[in-house]
Amino acid sequence: MAVLREVLEIAEKIKNMEIRGAGKIARSAAYALQIQAEKSKAKSVDEFWEEMKQAAKILYETRPTAVSLPNALRYVMHRGKIAYQSGADLEQLRYVVITAAKEFIHNSEKAVERIGEIGAKRIEDGDIIMTHCHSKAAISVMKTAWEQGKDIKVIVTETRPKWQGKITAKELASYGIPVIYVVDSAARHYMKMTDKVVMGADSITVNGAVINKIGTALIALTAKEHRVWTMIAAETYKFHPETMLGQLVEIEMRDPTEVIPEEELKTWPENITVWNPAFDVTPPEYVDVIITERGVIPPSAAIDILREEFGWALKYREPWED
Amino acid sequence: MAVLREVLEIAEKIKNMEIRGAGKIARSAAYALQIQAEKSKAKSVDEFWEEMKQAAKILYETRPTAVSLPNALRYVMHRGKIAYQSGADLEQLRYVVITAAKEFIHNSEKAVERIGEIGAKRIEDGDIIMTHCHSKAAISVMKTAWEQGKDIKVIVTETRPKWQGKITAKELASYGIPVIYVVDSAARHYMKMTDKVVMGADSITVNGAVINKIGTALIALTAKEHRVWTMIAAETYKFHPETMLGQLVEIEMRDPTEVIPEEELKTWPENITVWNPAFDVTPPEYVDVIITERGVIPPSAAIDILREEFGWALKYREPWED
Ligand SMILES: Nc1ncnc2c1ncn2[C@@H]1O[C@H](COP(=O)(O)O)[C@@H](O)[C@H]1O
Ligand SMILES: Nc1ncnc2c1ncn2[C@@H]1O[C@H](COP(=O)(O)O)[C@@H](O)[C@H]1O
Repeated sequence: MAVLREVLEIAEKIKNMEIRGAGKIARSAAYALQIQAEKSKAKSVDEFWEEMKQAAKILYETRPTAVSLPNALRYVMHRGKIAYQSGADLEQLRYVVITAAKEFIHNSEKAVERIGEIGAKRIEDGDIIMTHCHSKAAISVMKTAWEQGKDIKVIVTETRPKWQGKITAKELASYGIPVIYVVDSAARHYMKMTDKVVMGADSITVNGAVINKIGTALIALTAKEHRVWTMIAAETYKFHPETMLGQLVEIEMRDPTEVIPEEELKTWPENITVWNPAFDVTPPEYVDVIITERGVIPPSAAIDILREEFGWALKYREPWED
Repeated sequence: MAVLREVLEIAEKIKNMEIRGAGKIARSAAYALQIQAEKSKAKSVDEFWEEMKQAAKILYETRPTAVSLPNALRYVMHRGKIAYQSGADLEQLRYVVITAAKEFIHNSEKAVERIGEIGAKRIEDGDIIMTHCHSKAAISVMKTAWEQGKDIKVIVTETRPKWQGKITAKELASYGIPVIYVVDSAARHYMKMTDKVVMGADSITVNGAVINKIGTALIALTAKEHRVWTMIAAETYKFHPETMLGQLVEIEMRDPTEVIPEEELKTWPENITVWNPAFDVTPPEYVDVIITERGVIPPSAAIDILREEFGWALKYREPWED
């Protein structure tokens, strides 16, 4: 059995974080499966499928907590498995796998643009939009609406502790969009003048809860209070299959020195502890719609994305497991 | 008619902000009235009362937007007016005014301590309390509960843009209280572990809405969502009589350079505007109780405070007006 050297190299690069970012990791993993399928010297369909499963497992184990990586593998292997089980021959199966991998890569590359096109339809001329943190998908929605000639303004929250709001404000401004920059605490004060909230997601659970930058849930809550729609822009590979088996998404606790600089923190009394959670969880009730590259869905349809995109059946088994 | 030089001097110091801080301004104004009463050379009760009204008017005009100053004047003059109208003689009226002024000063000085005593009764052993910004009254509640031996922890939000959370965290820590310090955006994430919210007020409207540091309303909102009580600790002189005549409390817009340092802001594109509101407004529905030095009241009783403390009748006229 032969997993190709190229595949092992990609696995290594994902592992040591030479390849980073949710989108890039996912595309590299799909590409590794594509190479494996293209260059496989397997003599039978069974041997070929064994190799594919082997390659998928190796790639899967590189980053156990990422969402996008296993999703890429599932996308490809789920389609392979169906073909294999329905009796495809070697060349048919090879074709299915290669096509699925190319499809995943293409979709993923186009996802942000497609999300922009789809999401922009829900933005109306004159809208004041609030956003939080820095999300490529959310920005794509606003940028596309602006390019369509819709006269929008965006309220950007600074997003403590890491100030991603600055990046967002400058990026939006560079497209010509007027930006109002405020502290995170001002979200409710300015919700009254806000027409739509557009934010990204780090991952999305099976029941449509949105894990995203700390503060997202507060904004969604006050948006709900104001009958302002909260729209979450998220690529389908952000949906988190393991949550369907009950797994909780880990809320990463980051270093306190992101909140208070180390020099300053040293001088603080011992009975002050700084907590720095990276994310919070927005309940599905506070989310109006999720804008994916496959279309606009209600949060309750998160499970359908998991099922259709990644072949997540109710009785679950990874497509590379027997 | 003679308004005393001492009174004019105090008025001048309030005007040029040599005397600052809501509490100090209020006490100085009451003290000015006390001196006027003590040292007045008036020969008749009418002449005396004219002088008092004159002094009150001069003091009133020093800082037209402050809440605590007119409230101090009203407290004293309301009591004087009742005595005057019910036929007090010169010495009786002088006595009433002096007593009222001393009472106001004493109450105001003791207010924070008294709020601590009253509020601490609502804090239970083991409580995790969330607070925002730096409020002497709110801290007094927590400090008193801690000194009573109640084992509390306090979650302090950093309070952008001016980081008053740091002052609060250090002050609480100096009393020995364990503090958890978080960014403002983490308020909802940690509301689930919070038992009570205790915050201060900048001013309180006739219908019990709380004007306080930006972010207060968001915390009160998510506290409500979690069935966590929001308790507002506020001296009675924070209640805003003019709101009863329809006046809106001005939400001060402060300099953008408090949010983004001037050096950095200079480099930002022109289509980014930084808005820096100092306060937000928390609706009375989100406030469980207001803890004053006179007792715990529901927000709906704000009007009673205005009426009883400052003689605010439904048909309004300042006590120094005819
Ligand atoms: N760490 C987590 N991982 C996955 N789902 C979560 C997590 N925390 C909360 N949820 C879900 O998110 C929703 C909102 O939770 P809450 O904000 O606690 O009301 C609920 O539907 C929970 O099931
Ligand atoms: N600037 C203001 N001055 C006085 N009262 C206000 C002001 N803004 C809002 N209110 C009151 O505060 C409450 C909450 O307002 P809102 O947060 O807009 O729901 C309402 O009862 C308003 O009447």
